[in-house]
Amino acid sequence: MDEKIGQDAQRLLEILPKIAAIYESYGFAPLETGILEYAETIGSFLPDQERPNAGVFSFRDEDEKEWLALRYDLTAPLARYAARHYETLPKPFRRYQWGYVFRNEKIGPGRWRQFLQMDADTVGSANPAADAEMCMMIADIMEKVGFMRGQYPVRVSSRKIAEGVMEALAVGNDMETRATVMRAIDKYDRLGEKGVRDLLGAGRKDPSGDFTKGAGLSAKAIGGVMDFVQMRSQSREDFCEQAASLVQTSQRGEEGVEEMRVIHETLQSLGYSEDRVVFDSSIVRGLAYYTGAVFEATEKGGEKAQGALASGGRYDDLLSRFRSEPVPATGMSIGINRLLLKLQEKEKEKTQAPIIILAMEKTRMTEYQKIAADLRKAGMAAEAYLGSGGMKQQLKYADKREARFVVIEGEDERAKRKITIKDMKLGRQRSETIADNLAWRQGASAQETIGRENLVSWLKAAMKRQR
Amino acid sequence: MDEKIGQDAQRLLEILPKIAAIYESYGFAPLETGILEYAETIGSFLPDQERPNAGVFSFRDEDEKEWLALRYDLTAPLARYAARHYETLPKPFRRYQWGYVFRNEKIGPGRWRQFLQMDADTVGSANPAADAEMCMMIADIMEKVGFMRGQYPVRVSSRKIAEGVMEALAVGNDMETRATVMRAIDKYDRLGEKGVRDLLGAGRKDPSGDFTKGAGLSAKAIGGVMDFVQMRSQSREDFCEQAASLVQTSQRGEEGVEEMRVIHETLQSLGYSEDRVVFDSSIVRGLAYYTGAVFEATEKGGEKAQGALASGGRYDDLLSRFRSEPVPATGMSIGINRLLLKLQEKEKEKTQAPIIILAMEKTRMTEYQKIAADLRKAGMAAEAYLGSGGMKQQLKYADKREARFVVIEGEDERAKRKITIKDMKLGRQRSETIADNLAWRQGASAQETIGRENLVSWLKAAMKRQR
Repeated sequence: MDEKIGQDAQRLLEILPKIAAIYESYGFAPLETGILEYAETIGSFLPDQERPNAGVFSFRDEDEKEWLALRYDLTAPLARYAARHYETLPKPFRRYQWGYVFRNEKIGPGRWRQFLQMDADTVGSANPAADAEMCMMIADIMEKVGFMRGQYPVRVSSRKIAEGVMEALAVGNDMETRATVMRAIDKYDRLGEKGVRDLLGAGRKDPSGDFTKGAGLSAKAIGGVMDFVQMRSQSREDFCEQAASLVQTSQRGEEGVEEMRVIHETLQSLGYSEDRVVFDSSIVRGLAYYTGAVFEATEKGGEKAQGALASGGRYDDLLSRFRSEPVPATGMSIGINRLLLKLQEKEKEKTQAPIIILAMEKTRMTEYQKIAADLRKAGMAAEAYLGSGGMKQQLKYADKREARFVVIEGEDERAKRKITIKDMKLGRQRSETIADNLAWRQGASAQETIGRENLVSWLKAAMKRQR
Repeated sequence: MDEKIGQDAQRLLEILPKIAAIYESYGFAPLETGILEYAETIGSFLPDQERPNAGVFSFRDEDEKEWLALRYDLTAPLARYAARHYETLPKPFRRYQWGYVFRNEKIGPGRWRQFLQMDADTVGSANPAADAEMCMMIADIMEKVGFMRGQYPVRVSSRKIAEGVMEALAVGNDMETRATVMRAIDKYDRLGEKGVRDLLGAGRKDPSGDFTKGAGLSAKAIGGVMDFVQMRSQSREDFCEQAASLVQTSQRGEEGVEEMRVIHETLQSLGYSEDRVVFDSSIVRGLAYYTGAVFEATEKGGEKAQGALASGGRYDDLLSRFRSEPVPATGMSIGINRLLLKLQEKEKEKTQAPIIILAMEKTRMTEYQKIAADLRKAGMAAEAYLGSGGMKQQLKYADKREARFVVIEGEDERAKRKITIKDMKLGRQRSETIADNLAWRQGASAQETIGRENLVSWLKAAMKRQR
């Protein structure tokens, strides 16, 4: 599924240790669990309760007749692990984990059936400072992997404030209406004020003519919810102040405001100002999971359209599915493949393609290997051609590998202690831009013959110029 | 399955990019394939043909009624990929890959059901220089991850020479006898000369009384095979010379000798002498896979008992299971978890446990977070306690996390602009070694109160002393 060959693996392996180093600097310890889980475990932790086991790859084990599943995320395995070992674990339990997760659904840009996540969670702390810590880690990580400050705002909202606002507005107490309201809020980035108002009211017809039934709120309630949604452009302090007035006497709402104040104070005193973490009431995240703060980081401008680079929130009820007592918890997850995709869009890949030493005389293979080894010692990627093709096939090979340089030591060169270097990239460019025959023949100057002893220094300088 | 919490993940993430950098310096490009394969693909590539699909986790997909399997190694997915895309790939196709593989078998020391492999393969080259390259990469990697030269000999043998010797000795042409001979040779490290002679002859009774039927060779043939096995302590040049005489006129044997000569010459001229790569006829590896050179690296002294750290060989027939024409190929695999285990045995882990700032007054959480942030900025791992426990529970938490230091800023300290640091490790050592009560109370000197402004520099110096 979704096979790829290219630079990804190398970039991936550069990014994972950077993120691990940040998690560890905050005191998180690594945990490793298996890729297979019992299907039942995963089913009780899916973010969307409405579609049990949708999107899960599950199988029946032929020997033991058990239903097994490939893990859907790293949160369910953590919850299972923490619930099972709760008595003996240090509390709060702070672990990070990286690994592949699986989604049995259609693939598309930025969506895969198998992809890497890297999570950190604090299980057993109700303190909002633990939520603030998650936001700080996301900000630290974004800058460490290469985003500039201001490019990746971490946006935070509070599920409790959203619910407090609905309580204050006497929006129907049924789960269904509230879920419809939350889904409408979630679409603010994409549909704007008018679209959200329609979804809060009678419903909305999209440009294709499809009709989505709305939450059916009164005009007054719609106005109240819109006041909440439009808190997104406020400063963090103003956000808390206005939220306090919107939740009125809702106890849940007041709790939410108090939590956001602690988060703001923690961020403020640790120097994480609004160029890194903002409060934004349009952030919703998985409805069944989260109970308090919710947060996500998207590339500025990209917003929700292409999904979050990192996200998370507080999920105080999740572990109670396994244990009688409630265990407060908060966590975050980074979608590594999506992050890589974004980083690759931002900077053109450094070319890592090897220099290829052509195999000119069968009897001199060892000499060609030696040239490759000398180049490696000088810090360049290099290989001697090991196939059985002639000159033409060898150049074709170098072309497919996107090699920048090819090194040629034929009989003539050897006799004169010379060596020829062919600049494949220059050659390619010229053949693309130069039409007439004469200029094309001059393209031969994409090839240079130098003294054998100067090979390493010549290539080293040329590779440097290229970067 | 096989869950663990600890330092592994961090070490893993340090090792993977080091190995990737070496593979890339030799011109290998990364490939990523899915963890799930069709069971049929894996079944046709198992190293041991005698037990089809033994050890494979396989499932029936409920939707598509297909048999799926978790990949058993990275070679089968490569073979499938290379066979499918052969026309368009650069040839030779040089790829590296890292990823989890799965074995449905009993776990034990150094054996897991889910573990990481990191492979490199050259598909489409019959040149023995490609085999030599694999041996050089293994040697380079062993030194890069922390083995000293001489500690990890790469040991190379030739399947063709082994078969040539059997041909010359007219050892039964049937696959079964030959496989029995190879399995006997494979046991030389463990059973010594007598044990191998028994297994080549009538059979061997082990200390428990179990009898293993032998290959039933004649005394002359046994002598010949033993001459071959005992070539293991020769120099590479002597190995080739003696092998040439043992294979007599066997064409296959002569081919093997010629290949080993090219491998030796390549190694020699590139400076890989016998302290890194030796020829050793007792190396066997998977019987169904390999057709030419076979090699493995074990820690010196450990030998085969605990399995190879890295291994591989030439498998010229494998791809022909998918394609009509034969495609020569050679490759290597590193068992990352086993390698880590070895490295951990060699050096005591650097302690990465965080410094923990105790939560003394609920109202001052932000201040504790700020102390943790200051310590992180100075390069230390640190966290403020985020649970709801009292002093005793907080110290218990620090103990479970194996924290070296705990930072205490209570009301008293704050009034005097002081701060207290408790050395948990020293405290633990004293409570273990000192029995009487008075000495135990003096253990309080494992605690020191210093000026608040000196905290970072004091801890920095203390952490340095600790390393």
